[in-house]
Parts: sequence; structure tokens; C-alpha cells
Amino acid sequence: MKFHFLFIALVSTLAVSAQDHSHKSSRAITFPDVSGYKTLKTDLHQHTVFSDGNVWPTIRVMEALRDNLDVISLTEHLEYQPHKEDIPHPDRNRSYHLALQEAKDHDLLIIHGSEITRQAPMGHNNAVFIQDANKLLNEKAETSFAEAKDQGAFIFWNHPAWYAQSPQGTPILSDFQKERIKKGELHGIEVINTGDYAEESLALALENNLTIMGTSDIHGLIDWDYIEKGHDRPITLVFAKEKTAESLKEALFTGRTVAVFNSLLVGKKENLVPLLHACIEVEKAQYINKTSILEVTLKNVSSSDLVFENQMPYTFYSSSPVFTVPAGGTKTINIKTLDKKDGITLKLKALGAYVAPKQQPTIEWALKVED
Amino acid sequence: MKFHFLFIALVSTLAVSAQDHSHKSSRAITFPDVSGYKTLKTDLHQHTVFSDGNVWPTIRVMEALRDNLDVISLTEHLEYQPHKEDIPHPDRNRSYHLALQEAKDHDLLIIHGSEITRQAPMGHNNAVFIQDANKLLNEKAETSFAEAKDQGAFIFWNHPAWYAQSPQGTPILSDFQKERIKKGELHGIEVINTGDYAEESLALALENNLTIMGTSDIHGLIDWDYIEKGHDRPITLVFAKEKTAESLKEALFTGRTVAVFNSLLVGKKENLVPLLHACIEVEKAQYINKTSILEVTLKNVSSSDLVFENQMPYTFYSSSPVFTVPAGGTKTINIKTLDKKDGITLKLKALGAYVAPKQQPTIEWALKVED
Amino acid sequence: MKFHFLFIALVSTLAVSAQDHSHKSSRAITFPDVSGYKTLKTDLHQHTVFSDGNVWPTIRVMEALRDNLDVISLTEHLEYQPHKEDIPHPDRNRSYHLALQEAKDHDLLIIHGSEITRQAPMGHNNAVFIQDANKLLNEKAETSFAEAKDQGAFIFWNHPAWYAQSPQGTPILSDFQKERIKKGELHGIEVINTGDYAEESLALALENNLTIMGTSDIHGLIDWDYIEKGHDRPITLVFAKEKTAESLKEALFTGRTVAVFNSLLVGKKENLVPLLHACIEVEKAQYINKTSILEVTLKNVSSSDLVFENQMPYTFYSSSPVFTVPAGGTKTINIKTLDKKDGITLKLKALGAYVAPKQQPTIEWALKVED
Amino acid sequence: MKFHFLFIALVSTLAVSAQDHSHKSSRAITFPDVSGYKTLKTDLHQHTVFSDGNVWPTIRVMEALRDNLDVISLTEHLEYQPHKEDIPHPDRNRSYHLALQEAKDHDLLIIHGSEITRQAPMGHNNAVFIQDANKLLNEKAETSFAEAKDQGAFIFWNHPAWYAQSPQGTPILSDFQKERIKKGELHGIEVINTGDYAEESLALALENNLTIMGTSDIHGLIDWDYIEKGHDRPITLVFAKEKTAESLKEALFTGRTVAVFNSLLVGKKENLVPLLHACIEVEKAQYINKTSILEVTLKNVSSSDLVFENQMPYTFYSSSPVFTVPAGGTKTINIKTLDKKDGITLKLKALGAYVAPKQQPTIEWALKVED
Repeated sequence: MKFHFLFIALVSTLAVSAQDHSHKSSRAITFPDVSGYKTLKTDLHQHTVFSDGNVWPTIRVMEALRDNLDVISLTEHLEYQPHKEDIPHPDRNRSYHLALQEAKDHDLLIIHGSEITRQAPMGHNNAVFIQDANKLLNEKAETSFAEAKDQGAFIFWNHPAWYAQSPQGTPILSDFQKERIKKGELHGIEVINTGDYAEESLALALENNLTIMGTSDIHGLIDWDYIEKGHDRPITLVFAKEKTAESLKEALFTGRTVAVFNSLLVGKKENLVPLLHACIEVEKAQYINKTSILEVTLKNVSSSDLVFENQMPYTFYSSSPVFTVPAGGTKTINIKTLDKKDGITLKLKALGAYVAPKQQPTIEWALKVED
Repeated sequence: MKFHFLFIALVSTLAVSAQDHSHKSSRAITFPDVSGYKTLKTDLHQHTVFSDGNVWPTIRVMEALRDNLDVISLTEHLEYQPHKEDIPHPDRNRSYHLALQEAKDHDLLIIHGSEITRQAPMGHNNAVFIQDANKLLNEKAETSFAEAKDQGAFIFWNHPAWYAQSPQGTPILSDFQKERIKKGELHGIEVINTGDYAEESLALALENNLTIMGTSDIHGLIDWDYIEKGHDRPITLVFAKEKTAESLKEALFTGRTVAVFNSLLVGKKENLVPLLHACIEVEKAQYINKTSILEVTLKNVSSSDLVFENQMPYTFYSSSPVFTVPAGGTKTINIKTLDKKDGITLKLKALGAYVAPKQQPTIEWALKVED
Repeated sequence: MKFHFLFIALVSTLAVSAQDHSHKSSRAITFPDVSGYKTLKTDLHQHTVFSDGNVWPTIRVMEALRDNLDVISLTEHLEYQPHKEDIPHPDRNRSYHLALQEAKDHDLLIIHGSEITRQAPMGHNNAVFIQDANKLLNEKAETSFAEAKDQGAFIFWNHPAWYAQSPQGTPILSDFQKERIKKGELHGIEVINTGDYAEESLALALENNLTIMGTSDIHGLIDWDYIEKGHDRPITLVFAKEKTAESLKEALFTGRTVAVFNSLLVGKKENLVPLLHACIEVEKAQYINKTSILEVTLKNVSSSDLVFENQMPYTFYSSSPVFTVPAGGTKTINIKTLDKKDGITLKLKALGAYVAPKQQPTIEWALKVED
Repeated sequence: MKFHFLFIALVSTLAVSAQDHSHKSSRAITFPDVSGYKTLKTDLHQHTVFSDGNVWPTIRVMEALRDNLDVISLTEHLEYQPHKEDIPHPDRNRSYHLALQEAKDHDLLIIHGSEITRQAPMGHNNAVFIQDANKLLNEKAETSFAEAKDQGAFIFWNHPAWYAQSPQGTPILSDFQKERIKKGELHGIEVINTGDYAEESLALALENNLTIMGTSDIHGLIDWDYIEKGHDRPITLVFAKEKTAESLKEALFTGRTVAVFNSLLVGKKENLVPLLHACIEVEKAQYINKTSILEVTLKNVSSSDLVFENQMPYTFYSSSPVFTVPAGGTKTINIKTLDKKDGITLKLKALGAYVAPKQQPTIEWALKVED
């Protein structure tokens, strides 16, 4: 029976009539580039029906386009295939190929990845930039990691603090991880997974020079787990020389990342400080007529609300020392500089940003006063 | 390899932490019961990855629960299986069984259904209340319809006006449909599909005494096609003696339905008039002090905005003769009754409701004036 | 004691610090010009503390600017001065002068007006374009009307259906009004006052060739009576040759007006039809590929939601025959033209618009089909 | 001429018809009582047309009722009367009496107050709980303060940091204020005025044991200056034994206050810590099954978003150490207690609260773990 010619346009045409004036508010995730690098928005940990997720890979591509991401990877469990009875496809690269096909007309990079899944202490790990997922499916985890390394993969430890595997939620490095790091088979670690930020994972990242990652680990719908709650999905910002798979890979291996979940930003100091500096643009810096009160308007060009605390010797005329510059919006602060100056250094601690457990960075902007 | 014990709680536990205070506005579809009948909210035309949809059947169950539906059916194309390479499952009942399993702890009826799909003039048709979908897959459409009838199915013609099959959008009954109706193999017709209402389909329903149906025909996500646009999905309200599959089936065969898409309600007069009557409750009917102006507060207990036009000999003191009673809200009208009366008959034409092409019903409510 | 130099900037400077990123959605009232005329948005019936209102005249100017009005008049009761003990100012032109001062740097016309207030049957009446309000204060109403006429005023009857003066809400023309009309001392009539539309007043306007008026009659705050309920204030659209007091006056005397309250528009046919025609712009008119279904996108350039009902011989592919084009938004309709045409006449009845009691106009747009 | 009987119901009846289903979101300011005291929400610095404000006193009463305040005072400038030409009323108590009349059927306390206004260094000062405003109008400020004291008034210094009077925005105590304090003629100081919080004013309050005040200093409309920007007006919370003028006065003289502007709360430690403790209720404290992760749900019963930073030795499983409990909402945090405990002390620093310049309090709640 031949039905195909009939159906080619089925989904697209029936959808037309409901498309009048959208009520949807923008959900685009936005971050500025930093000096010398493109800031790529990535979510490198996702599931579809090809492992234990609930949607076809095409939906993951559409979600990413709606969220304005630059890069995704579908990282199906190799060993855990609850839909295997229905989807017995022997090729574990299948999910990747379906996503690649869906994304072909869009400016979205699809990175080939896979999850290597074991109980503690090995735990869950993602290998991205792989060549063939099938070869990663092995009895011994060690064999899978070695194979991933041979394929040139960037490998990171997923949700080390996950209480199903770490009942106290305080992960420690087992001999397995130590061995992997030593052999160059473990390069990153999730410090944010789903909505969970683990300070202990951040400590491990810093102690072992692992790349800091944030991912959604989505199984259901991004709309239900994040959007309808007013959240953006967790992502990893990667500072790459260009928007290419190659540049991305280089940046991940080099560790140029910041993990983000809404107003929480976690990264190494050398990455997080320039990012925050770029997120805030000074729109105006002018003395209020005949006073020594400097009116400064700050614009937040990112999609995260940013909370700051004044660290200057000067106090504010208006607003609390703790204040928010809303995502995409502006905030005007009035600084009492005591006498009129040509310029000052604006110093603010970013309260939602961490460069180490409990340690928030202070950012400095050189303000030139306008006449 | 045995991973299963490990993963049982994976999806559910990781999702917990993002569940704080929801920002979601209610999306529950609501309609009142009418005299003698339960009003069941149904969507009997849906697709999943088991034909040309993009989600696992479990998502359809979750969407239905969010929308407050009473009944759904997953009606996969038997003959059109674009994911067959990946999902070669030979049992065409599989989608039904997966939905049934997901819904087992909820008060949601899953009706076994299937789509019988051909080019025009046979077109697309849904059979619901079937026993075995496999037996409906046949070379000849006639055989499939006969089999569906043997299984006791309720069968309806999908989107007859669909322009891919009816390029002018004005469907006519072919010999095929005439034969089916004569043989008792075609019982209903979609007058609303996706967002499309076809007056010609309504005319066919009335001329041939077919049950009036409205369905989403969803392939992607209800959230993207409807919710984020501020819409509810199209549904069929079925007036059943009880909330059981048996009662539902009886009501469908008897034709006790209204198709609904947001503010558009389409049904036979004997079904639509009582529904509209029940949707509006009179909260107050009292003369304004020392005047012959009767203040009447109307409450709309449905989830559809309802637009009315005054059909009384009396004019209004305030508001236009055309006014809206918002979904779940109230509207107060002031009626100039010329002298004080003990009661009047409120007569309003429902402008968004159709009992025949271009024919809107006038509803009457007996108002008893309070002292 | 001299404090003045100190206070000059008090209000303005203290307000500065709270002005960061506004949460206010736009409340600008917008209507397109019609062929040959500027469409002026006016509210010619308002009160301040100088009669029985609750705000200083400056607030009325600020409200008008926020609402994007072109013209206002402060029409204080001459005879009813509940704040007289506190505000004994003998000059009844005072309110006008204060508003004029406040508006001096804005493109808002302040028209000198006053209310002449009596019990029924004379009722309440507004005289606008007066020279000196003081001279309108007389024992006999007839004297006041004659004086207003002498000053060249445009005079209209306020809320004739108001139940405090017309307990059945059905106004009739008394000998007093008949005499005024005959003498050229009554030129207009409110058909919309506050939120009240009176069909009987519209009938009187048409029978006696009176200019149709809509006004807010605001005493408190526009924000509380309208904005926070999701409403715009009632206004009179005046079609004037230029945006000048003189042109406005000519247009009022000639009767070129439409009264508007949200989605309700009331006017003489020759004024209302061109307005509605201009409110809807056709953005697109193109056949859907290989079909005879014409996809037409309508843009509503006004700030009123407009509800239409199809009056063509053709039916729609999607959407109900009754549909809304939202204020400032678009609506796409698909018209089944049966065969492909180079152009058609789009014919829609405007359900929220009245050219006579219960009589809604049908508007026609010539659609040229794009390739 | 007698018009009065006609107008009695004019404003109220015409307003009826626009009152259908409100779109207004709640603007009620809410704070919990603290142990032993009623928490009274007060705004003791406001202006009307009787000095340099723009509304009649009745509007101030209506605004207060909408904002759910318990107490207001209208504090007209005695010496600055820009509307004097129009409102020459010689009795400076007039504004108070009009407000009192308007509030008579409501549970809103009207406190008799007045502003004593001079240039720096005397500056602006409010006296509340006065007997006769007329007697406060004197050539010499010293005389006015002495008179206010004689009348039993509570007197506070308004916006000491206001740059029109303190061009660097860093107020210092002049001999004038020192003398007033010594003589018992100055008891409080605004640390928040309009939207401006001055750390220097807080320092002065603490050094001189002055009562901490926050006020709107409203001249225009609360809706325009605050509500439409998404803000609540600044207020002073007063912890009084009862909701009576007498109790309020005792509490003000004793210094039991917290100044509030949205998420900023400023008060002496002994007042602010119990308030914050009462603002957060623990709804749930339970270990997640088989883990030592304690799930704690916090409910914020106030109308201010509250931002906290973890100060415990334990880290969180989910969420950042810095997190918000939204106004009227809940936030769930998961605490890694390392082993299972019967109870712990929840310790959080309130980042938006100040007990001294730059000094935020840490609040402790004893958590009892549920089984």
C-alpha cells in the first residue's frame, strides 16, 4: 500500500490555522559574548524515547530552537532501555541521526553523545563528541571509558551528588574516578543537574581541574519541567573561539565554561568574572544636577536576573545595597561619591554567582562620568 | 546486565527539586453537567510515536490530566507508520496498552481506537471502542470498516473539509460514505479538527444524522499547538448517563455531543441549548433601588468565554446588546423592564454557538426577581 | 516667610528613584485617521475638585497623556460645588486655566467647558468651547443655554437615560429639549456615559440629528474606574480636518463623531463605516498552495478588540463565522472561494458596532489576491 | 438654588455599571503579627491638595484601604501652600477632618499630623499625634517643635539625605537636631522615603536612638508612583499592643518599628529579627526516603519577597545557597544533614534586611523533623 504522497504535508498544513497572534512570552535564553570568545549556550545531557525519555528526538531539536540554544547533545543511556521492547533498534547512534536530520536547516549544532550508566561508585557519565555509540556498550565501565577516549570524547560525571547514588548528597571521588582522571578519561563534572546545584561537586571540579557543567537531564518536556514554572533550563555556557563543533570541543577540554540555572551562575573565576562583566552594560553615568550624587543606569543584557551587593566605599542614595538588575532590563542606582569625580570603579559582589563553594565574585566596571 | 533496580525512581526523583511554587495558570477545561447527564470532556483523535506523532503515549495521558479531560483515545494511523523502522512493533494495540498502564491510577478513561486512513474519497476515519486494531489493517477500506463494525466500533469521518483531500474545502458525501452510512459503518463526523470548523461538515452531520465531533488531532505537543497561544484544545463534550466507557459509547451512538474549540460551540439544538443554559447561572436579579432597572448578574461556569446578544423586547441600561460573560467569571447587565415585574424571561442569542450553518441558538432563562 | 525657591523641584526629584524598569502595560488609546480627516480622541466630560471630583486639574491632564488622548474638557458643575467651603474661588474658569497651564508643553488640546446642571426634565448638559463659565451660572436654565449659545458653545445633553433622572432608563425629549434644539442651543447627546450605552439615546440622536457623544464623566481616578478593570475610558472620536480647536468645533457641530467604550462603537453610518474600514488593514491575501482556499491576514490597528461575523457567500476553512481581531493584533481567516479569483470583496458585520439601535453595519474591503 | 438632593447618589450610581469582574491583581500589603504585638502597617507622611499634593484627602483614604494599611497620617506642609489661592482655608486641621470623615466606616486609623518645613539644616519634619496644626505655624522652627511637643506629638526628621538639602546625600546631625533630641522634640528619622534608603540615616537612628521610619511621602497617585511599577509603597511597620492610636503612639515613642520598601526591611535588631522569624513558616521538614537529605518547605506569609543565604554548616542538595522565598509563596530547600537528625537549627542570613549599615541579620528557626 502506498500512502506516502498523501501525508507529506499532513502535520504542517493542519497546524496552520491555529497560528494567529501568539500569547507566548519570549523564552529565548541570551548571554553576551566575552572578549575573544563566542558564548555558546549548550545542553549536553538529554534523553528521548531511545532510552528513558518520553519524546521523539525531533522534539528536543524544537525545544532547543525555542530556547535559543546553540548546541545540544542527546545522551541516551546505553545500558538502560525501558522502551526496548518497542524500539529494538540495534544502532545506538539512531537518536543522534534523527536529531541531525531535524536540525539540518537550523543554526543548531548537534553533538554526538551517549551516557555510560552504572551504579555507584562509577555512576552516570556522559561522553560527547563520540564517533560510534555502539562501541561504548560494554560489560565493564572501564572498557567504555577507554573506548570513549579513543573516539576523542569529552567525558563528564553526571550529578555526582544524586541521592540515589550518594544518599548523603556529598559525593567523593572514588578510586574509579581518580583512575579515569589520571588516564585522561574524565574531563568534566556536573555541578548543576536538573535544578540541583551541589557545592561539593564544585569543590571536586576545582580540586581536580574538571570542566564545570550544567545540564537539564531532561526526560519529559522542557515546557513542563521549566517553562511553566517560570524557569529556564540549566545549561552550560561554553566560551568558544567560533561556533563550530571543533571550537566547542577545544573550549570544553580547556575548561572555559559557566553552568547556569536561572539566576545561579557557577564557574571558574577566569570564566565567570568576564561573563558577569559583559552581562552588565553601563547605559548612563551622570551627576544629578548640582549634587555629588552619581546616577548610573545598568542594563542587564542576559536572560538571568542578576543580584548584586555594593562593595564600594560609597553608599547609595536610593535602593538597598542589595539590588537586582532584571533580565533584559535596567536598574538605576545613585552613588554618593562625596565629591564630583571624572570616573569611579563600580564594585559589586554578584550574590547569585559562585567561583568556589560559598564564594561569590566581586566584579569591577570602570565608569567614566558623562558631562 | 541488570540496571533496573537502580533506575526505578530516576525520572521522578530528579524532577522534585524544580517543583517550587508554580507560575502556571490553570488550564483545566470545565463544563457543567446537564439535566440527566454527565458532561464528559473527550479528545478521541490523537497520535503518538506509534504512528506519526512525536511523543510517547504516556505524554498524551499527562496532557489529558492537565487539561482536565475525562476521556481520550490514541488513534494511530494503521497504514501510515513513518517511525516503523525504529518502532516495528507488530501489535497495533500497543499504544493503547501503554496509555492504559499510565492512566491506571487516574480517573481518565482510555478508549481503544485506531485511524483507518485512505486518500479521498474514503479519506481518514477514526474507529473507537474497537477490540483489536490489527484486524482493521486491510487492503480494502471496505473490509476495515466492516471489521470495525463487527468489533462494535463507533466510527467517524475525520476532517472531511481538509484541503489536502478536498482542495476547495467543501466536502461532499461520496458513494463510499453513503454506503458506509447505509451499512451502519459510519456514525459521526468531525466538524472541528485542530482549529478548523467546517460549516459544510456540520451540514452533512445534520442531513445524515451523524454525531458531531471535535478533536485536536494532535501530533506534537498540546502546549505548543494550543496552550502557549492561549487556546484550549478542541474537544467533544459527550452527555453520558455515567462516566463509564459503556455510557460514553451509548451517548456517541445516540448523538448526544457538542464540539468545542474555545468560544466556538457546535452541536445539535437538543444538545447545545441545554448545555448553554447550564453554563450560565443567575447569581442575582434585583431591581436597582426605586427604579424599574433590573440588575442581573450572570456567572459563566464553563471554561469558554461566551458571547451573547440581547433578544428581549427590553433594552439594557449599561453595556452593549452584544456582551461577553468571561470563562469562570461574571457579567452584570441592567435590564430596563419599564415597570417592576416579579420575573422575566432572559433571552440571549449565543453568538459563538451553532446548531446549523450560520444559525445561532437563542437561550432562555426564567428569572425570578429577588426582593 | 519665603519657602518657594526650596520647593521648586520637590515633587519631581523625589519621584526619580522609583522609576526603574516599568511594569506598566501600554494603555494608549489608538485609532487610525480616516480619509480626509484626523481622528481626534476626546473626553469632553470630566470633573475635578473644582466641582464634585476628587483630584486637582493637573491629574486630569496627566491621565489624558497616559491614555493618549488628543483633547479634554473639564466640565465642572456650576451649580453643584460640594467643596465650596474649601475652594470658594469665585472664578468658574479656574479649573480650565489650571489644566491649560499643566498641558502647555504637551500636544493636548484643553477645551474650555462647563456643566449646566438641573433636575429632570432639563437634566445635565455640557457646554464646550465657552468663553466665560461665570456667565453660565443663572437661576433659569434657559438663560444659561442662551448665554452658552451666545458664547459659540457646542452643547450636549449628558446621560439622558440616567436612572436618577429617568427611573425607567428610557429618556424622552421634553419640551425643554425640543425648544433648545429648535433654538440651536442643543447640538449633541451622550449615548455612552461612564460605562452605560443607551439605545434610546442613540435613537434620539438619529431622530433629531444630534451629535453622538461618549464620555467618561470621571470624578475619581481613571485608573480605578477603568484601567485596573482592563477597560479604556469611554471617549468620543471626532473626525476633524486638523488637530486644532477650530477644526474640532466644526466637526462636532457637523456631527462627525463615533462614541467608543472598549469594543463598543456607536456612530452615524457615514462616520462609523469609514472608521471600521480604516481599523482593519489587510496584511496578506494569498491562496494556499494548490487550493482554492484564500488565506487572509487582518490587522487591527485600533486599541479596541473588534468582533466580526462573516457576511460573504463563502464559508471559512478555519475559525468560526464569528471571530475577533484583537486590538493591535492580527487574525488569519481562510476563505473558501470555490475557485481561484483575482480578488474578492470581504464582507463582515461588525458585531460590536451600532449605527442605529440593534443595527450593526456591514463593512466591505476590496481584497486583491497576491500571487 | 438647591441642587443637593439631586446629587446625593451621583458618583456612586454612575460607577456601578463598570464594576464587572475585576482584572486587578491583589495589592494588599501583608505582614504577620509578632509575639505579643499587633503589626500595624502605617504610612505617616502624605500630602493632598491642602498643601502640595494633587488629590483630595478622600483619595488618600481609598488608597490606604486598597493597600491594606492600618494607619495613615496626612502631613500637609504648614508653610508651603501652592494651592493657597484656590484653597485659602485658614484651618490647617481641615485635611485631617476630611480624611476622618471618609474613613469613619472603615477599620483605618487616621492620625492627626502636620509637616514642619524649613530649609537645611532644620529641614523637613513630621509631627504626628498633634492636637491643632494651626499652632505649629510659627516664624521660628524652634517654636513649632516646642508646640508640637506640648501637644504630645511624635516628631520625626524627613528624608535627611534628600539631596536638595544635603547635596552629598550624607546627612549629619546639626546643632538644631541635637538640641531637639536633647529637649525631647525629635523622636524618629526616616531611613526610607519614597524609594530612597539612606544608610547614613540608619546610622543616625542607631547612634541617637531615634525611631526608624519609612514613608511614601506621596504627592501624586500611589498607583502611578508604585503600583504600576510593581512596587508597594514604603511603610513603617509598628509593633503595637493593640490596634489603637494610643498603642501606636506608645510603640512609636518606644521605637518598635521596621521600615519596609518591597524586599528591603530596615529596623533595630530587636524588632527586625522577630518580624523575619514570623514571616517564614515551616510547612514541612521531612527526610527524603532512605537518605539524609532533609526536605524543608518554607512559606513566606508576608507581601515582600525575602532573599536568604544559607549560614548552616550543611549544604543544600538543590538550589543555590542564595534563594528567594516569594511573597505569599513557598520555597522548598533540601538540606544535607549528613546523618538523620530529630531536629536542626535552620540559620539563614536575610540579604534584604538591615539592622545597621551593611549589616544583615541571621535568623534562626528550630526545625523539628517529622516522621
